[in-house]
Amino acid sequence: MKCENFVVNAIGRRVPTIVNGEPVIPFKGLRQHRPTGRKYAPPIPTCIDYPDDGNKVVGSLAEALKRCGLKDGMTISTHHHLRDGDLVSNTIFDIAHEMGVKDLVWMPTAAFPCNEPLTKYLEDGTINRIEGSMNGPLGKFTSYGGMKGCAVLRSHGGRVQAIQDGEVKIDIAVIAAPTADPFGNATGTEGPSACGILGYSLIDMLYADKVIVVTDNLVPFPCMPFQIQGNFVDYVVVVDKIGIPEKIVSGTTQVTKSPDRLLLAEWTAQFCAEAGLLHDGVGIQTGAGGTSLSVGLHFHEQLKANGWKARFGFGGSTQYLVKMLEDGVMDYILDGQAFDLEAVRSVRENTNHIDLSVFQSYNYHSKGNYTSLTDIVILGATEIDTKFNGNVVTHSDGLLLHGIGGWQNCLHSKCTILPVPLFRDRIPVIVDNVTTFCGPGELIDVIVTERGIVINPLRTDLIDKMRGTSLPLVTIEDLKAEVDAICGKPDKAPISDKDEDTVAIIKWVDGTVIDCVRKVLE
Amino acid sequence: MKCENFVVNAIGRRVPTIVNGEPVIPFKGLRQHRPTGRKYAPPIPTCIDYPDDGNKVVGSLAEALKRCGLKDGMTISTHHHLRDGDLVSNTIFDIAHEMGVKDLVWMPTAAFPCNEPLTKYLEDGTINRIEGSMNGPLGKFTSYGGMKGCAVLRSHGGRVQAIQDGEVKIDIAVIAAPTADPFGNATGTEGPSACGILGYSLIDMLYADKVIVVTDNLVPFPCMPFQIQGNFVDYVVVVDKIGIPEKIVSGTTQVTKSPDRLLLAEWTAQFCAEAGLLHDGVGIQTGAGGTSLSVGLHFHEQLKANGWKARFGFGGSTQYLVKMLEDGVMDYILDGQAFDLEAVRSVRENTNHIDLSVFQSYNYHSKGNYTSLTDIVILGATEIDTKFNGNVVTHSDGLLLHGIGGWQNCLHSKCTILPVPLFRDRIPVIVDNVTTFCGPGELIDVIVTERGIVINPLRTDLIDKMRGTSLPLVTIEDLKAEVDAICGKPDKAPISDKDEDTVAIIKWVDGTVIDCVRKVLE
Repeated sequence: MKCENFVVNAIGRRVPTIVNGEPVIPFKGLRQHRPTGRKYAPPIPTCIDYPDDGNKVVGSLAEALKRCGLKDGMTISTHHHLRDGDLVSNTIFDIAHEMGVKDLVWMPTAAFPCNEPLTKYLEDGTINRIEGSMNGPLGKFTSYGGMKGCAVLRSHGGRVQAIQDGEVKIDIAVIAAPTADPFGNATGTEGPSACGILGYSLIDMLYADKVIVVTDNLVPFPCMPFQIQGNFVDYVVVVDKIGIPEKIVSGTTQVTKSPDRLLLAEWTAQFCAEAGLLHDGVGIQTGAGGTSLSVGLHFHEQLKANGWKARFGFGGSTQYLVKMLEDGVMDYILDGQAFDLEAVRSVRENTNHIDLSVFQSYNYHSKGNYTSLTDIVILGATEIDTKFNGNVVTHSDGLLLHGIGGWQNCLHSKCTILPVPLFRDRIPVIVDNVTTFCGPGELIDVIVTERGIVINPLRTDLIDKMRGTSLPLVTIEDLKAEVDAICGKPDKAPISDKDEDTVAIIKWVDGTVIDCVRKVLE
Repeated sequence: MKCENFVVNAIGRRVPTIVNGEPVIPFKGLRQHRPTGRKYAPPIPTCIDYPDDGNKVVGSLAEALKRCGLKDGMTISTHHHLRDGDLVSNTIFDIAHEMGVKDLVWMPTAAFPCNEPLTKYLEDGTINRIEGSMNGPLGKFTSYGGMKGCAVLRSHGGRVQAIQDGEVKIDIAVIAAPTADPFGNATGTEGPSACGILGYSLIDMLYADKVIVVTDNLVPFPCMPFQIQGNFVDYVVVVDKIGIPEKIVSGTTQVTKSPDRLLLAEWTAQFCAEAGLLHDGVGIQTGAGGTSLSVGLHFHEQLKANGWKARFGFGGSTQYLVKMLEDGVMDYILDGQAFDLEAVRSVRENTNHIDLSVFQSYNYHSKGNYTSLTDIVILGATEIDTKFNGNVVTHSDGLLLHGIGGWQNCLHSKCTILPVPLFRDRIPVIVDNVTTFCGPGELIDVIVTERGIVINPLRTDLIDKMRGTSLPLVTIEDLKAEVDAICGKPDKAPISDKDEDTVAIIKWVDGTVIDCVRKVLE
């Protein structure tokens, strides 16, 4: 069985304590789980085993995988910096399939629609399961019970925590690199498949037993400035193309044109201004969704109008964040991934556009991280319940269609604001109970909807500051009543309630199991 | 006893197999020792234990050390980037002494004359021993048997290897940082005590159980671009001054004016040109000594005259290396430490002046490192024997006066050249047997003296290439005969031959014991 020994965790969700044969810890509540023990320790390598001339290039990815000892049951990791233009991840499993290797675990930093072909390898047993964010087709496949193992969903920071802590041991990391040298030093800033940053791969580079760099732009040693260090790399593979440039980064990221979303953005920005959240020296993360980008534009204007400067803006970076930097209203972009071509250019050109690792920004098993130092974070959600708890992975119909991304990590900011519509396609966003519990309401401070703004009652400081505002403040119960009046009581989703139908678990930032996802009945 | 269970190692030196109570492995010959096991794994921290606002500043270094649990027998590490202007290292032991803490191990990345006051703590038992390069007064103190424990000398790369492999566990790393933020992010490029680079501290940051950053220039979060990552830092201490600027880096590094040394440099450069070692795309490390700098000037001229470009120059960086970069005859400076003010400026301003960690350049227990990719390395030595073996730590009188630095690491280059005088103060440099065996003759390719140039007979390729040269090629036996004729047979140095008088061991780059140093009799 994929999942065994179910218990009820601290937030009342029934979760397994054995997943894919390994023990896991149920969520204990915020700040309750204290890790013991030591970080994972990879084997000690020696220069004796690597070529003196530094040339680690081998003939093909198949050869590299064979030399790494690819075999049944191994865990293979990849990054998502090539986004929907990734030509490397699927190829790994094509090779594994040809070799007759079975029961692999794929641990991507995120999956994209381009990874849909992997469903056939989930079906035929080449891949046992995915541990990592998945969305769209792969998520749907998982929802209907197609995956042999139990999927494990982690936030970006949770992935780093799990690898660092040895919860997952990566046997082979395959790092697609827009530019690399034969020693394995690599960067995302240059080359025909430039994606700007490779920060999601740093943890894989550090902890994987074997590391393969795949590039379509080999340069003479040393590839500098480096993002990936060749000292951790076993083999380098040169291929024709690692990615489809126009799908790696969108040419432009675009602000929403929906009047409703524009209203959410305007109210969000006004709220931040009136509550004193936006100020000189502020640190913000607005995200790259259409609404978030619009919030960012408002922030840009407000900072400029007040003669203020944001101290930092967290990436994923976009043309709008780059404009803030280059317009002098922001000191630094701290960036984990580049979303558009302007962002890629900026990483290359601006020394204050900083290539940051997920370890630094998001890892909870670290001596502090950047999330709790960020003043304002703008996030989304598929559902929010009346206790402010949030869901980002499933829809109300039970289908697993999104990864967690940095959502759980960012909740730790000083003020987390969720601008969301009250309903989507007549499906309520505000619900009695979230279908999947991804983050505790204690960490969600403000919800902005087109029918009013809710401040979490725990934030008495914000409530005080907003007394007398012209913005429409309401309670979560007001919103719930309103959405029920509009949408009616939704049908019960066709989701199994059986433990044995658990298809995925959701990890919290500390590695504990906060909830699980059960099979959707067809 | 400090050292026990002596055996004869692969190069015939009698070495202990137990040092300071721990087992050590005798040198087995080049490329013979294959490490087993896993890297050291520090404890897993959690954000729960660190302030949400990221402010880790505490009132004093004493308070930080107490909070880190400073106690008897702990290992404390520091870096040497502040060189002879370091105001932090000694203070740590002043505090320990006041607290009555005993038997500490000091693991610096190097020691300088400014550390002489620590001898009193070696005498009174506050410090048990030094593990790391030491020179001048501390070395002399050790030579005469003053140190309670046995000193352990490692190369820069060997230090990284030892920490990574868990041979030494650092309890508390104290990182003096010219600029830092309250979270612990830090850089050496800015501030009144700017030293350019903090690359020697990266391994300490990664592996020490506790990390303290000490700065005299606190800036608001985030201190960017970072060299030290606050996610690994426990406490930040703000002091008036971490260093004496004029002693941190010399205002200028200077080429030798000695006619003899200028000749050595000229011949070395001519040799490199004639042997085809210097070419377009060459990688070089010339060092910062007076002779080496002069060699570098010749290389600069030759590259320019030929329209060639060096691919990289290894630091420690100086104004001369910076000139090569800025003059367009070098693509990259790969730098571990800045030796002068021009170098500090260049790290800050030139994006192709790369801040490199010792891990990347020198670690032998890595998947390859940069030393074997370097075409030409210019090094010194206190003694070279007729089998080309070298000594860099002791003089012929037995006194331990120098650290190993990067010397053992750099021996792995494609061509290692030692321009050395035949004798110094009538003491021969070419000897029958080196006083202390620091590096095997197989790795030393060319010796350039004022009485002739010797090519190691193993390098038949170089011998072939130099046929017909106008340079005075001689044999090592020629040189030995000549120096004996000039200096006469030297008196036997007053060095103990008793095992129990072992005062220091010399580690090879793979962590094995290549030789030891015995007490000098007064």
